[in-house]
Amino acid sequence: MFITTTTYRVRYSDTDQMGVVYYGNYPRFYEIGRSEMIRDLGYTYKELEETGVFMPVASVHAKYQKPIYYDELITIETALKKMPQARMVFFHTIYNEKHEVVHTAEVTLVFLDAVSNRPVRVPQYMLEALEKMTDLEQN
Amino acid sequence: MFITTTTYRVRYSDTDQMGVVYYGNYPRFYEIGRSEMIRDLGYTYKELEETGVFMPVASVHAKYQKPIYYDELITIETALKKMPQARMVFFHTIYNEKHEVVHTAEVTLVFLDAVSNRPVRVPQYMLEALEKMTDLEQN
Amino acid sequence: MFITTTTYRVRYSDTDQMGVVYYGNYPRFYEIGRSEMIRDLGYTYKELEETGVFMPVASVHAKYQKPIYYDELITIETALKKMPQARMVFFHTIYNEKHEVVHTAEVTLVFLDAVSNRPVRVPQYMLEALEKMTDLEQN
Amino acid sequence: MFITTTTYRVRYSDTDQMGVVYYGNYPRFYEIGRSEMIRDLGYTYKELEETGVFMPVASVHAKYQKPIYYDELITIETALKKMPQARMVFFHTIYNEKHEVVHTAEVTLVFLDAVSNRPVRVPQYMLEALEKMTDLEQN
Repeated sequence: MFITTTTYRVRYSDTDQMGVVYYGNYPRFYEIGRSEMIRDLGYTYKELEETGVFMPVASVHAKYQKPIYYDELITIETALKKMPQARMVFFHTIYNEKHEVVHTAEVTLVFLDAVSNRPVRVPQYMLEALEKMTDLEQN
Repeated sequence: MFITTTTYRVRYSDTDQMGVVYYGNYPRFYEIGRSEMIRDLGYTYKELEETGVFMPVASVHAKYQKPIYYDELITIETALKKMPQARMVFFHTIYNEKHEVVHTAEVTLVFLDAVSNRPVRVPQYMLEALEKMTDLEQN
Repeated sequence: MFITTTTYRVRYSDTDQMGVVYYGNYPRFYEIGRSEMIRDLGYTYKELEETGVFMPVASVHAKYQKPIYYDELITIETALKKMPQARMVFFHTIYNEKHEVVHTAEVTLVFLDAVSNRPVRVPQYMLEALEKMTDLEQN
Repeated sequence: MFITTTTYRVRYSDTDQMGVVYYGNYPRFYEIGRSEMIRDLGYTYKELEETGVFMPVASVHAKYQKPIYYDELITIETALKKMPQARMVFFHTIYNEKHEVVHTAEVTLVFLDAVSNRPVRVPQYMLEALEKMTDLEQN
């Protein structure tokens, strides 16, 4: 398993009138998690796009377990369990300041060729970076 | 099945630099769908809160099938398949202007007592409104 | 003066934990106002972009007078006071359900050529549409 | 002058289809700036609210000078030029990675008593923290 951990300070803009983080703001947390994981692999999602590969989201499965409150410094843990091929599945676990699990999500992205607009396999250099840094099972 | 249909005009604020609606903006579409369904039942989610019942989201299962583009007038179809008890499950299907299904989501909400902060069953008046307007199966 | 009026239902996603619309969500209201004004002129901002002209925002001057609450159906009134040349200035007045002015904003946009990325003057066909529909003073 | 500097990584969620940060996402940057300034004073905006004082925004004057791009690590510089009394005015200057000024904003907040919902003067302890840390001119 390859894991990246990052933190995020909850802002007023994230909350709603229930006094907690609005449920629709969690996908931004997943985005932060997976972007920082890709950065940990030695490059950025921005560079990926510059090579002509986009990664749109295909599905989200999310479980809201406890509320997240304003000004909390949450921890976003992002895990990769299998080597990506046509899809890349990120597992996010969000912890509050008491280290309680407040949220989990499984987010699947696909690789898309920017020119043909068709699905492609994971870029070779990403695979190599993953192979160097992890002992992930082939899918 | 009880179905509510509403439309939404996609704004620039909904898009991201991939030129499509950002995946994290879809939960707002679910919110619009379920709010309008509750309004169709004869009252509003606001009134529900005023009676001391909140409905936080417990889980989201979403499938992104086709991109949604700027300025499209999308149709959000929201369906209730079973009578709610401790939970209320909304099934959303989003259509683009060509009437293609672009997105589906199953969103589960729970009922929470605002004072005790504990789960409660669906309010009686909501159940009655649903019974009057639908022939939903008891859960 | 050329005026366009449109309505918007406030959603939970718009609110923050102060129990009112988050101040950072008002620019979306301005966007709705000016998009609908351009639509009233007989085309869409999307079409404008397709002709190679973008309209980035240059400045915002906003005054928050009264809070806006969840589920309110607000009215966004957008006025054009002068014919645009290099800039187009939209004056927004937002009313709540009691017809009280809750917010005013003056938003200036410029015209940008998508290819050269340089400022250009208002497209001729937009000027003509404005001349047909209004008696705006030349700037 | 009292100045706080903080950084922010631009996310996909911040961008729009023009390929830059959506103009409506800048108010979140101001919020980050002023929250971190208050934190630098030795407490948090959250604690301020817990003492029964809210700080709604009264006005925004913003100038968009250059676009901000995806994945940039922007610097948000927040300055206080005068001691607050009934109002607190924050001056924000945002820099891109090349240290160019890309945006400036002047944001005025008022102090509101949570119980009476009426304007109040700046809390005494905030004034004292400011006096200890700065040589700001009395308004």
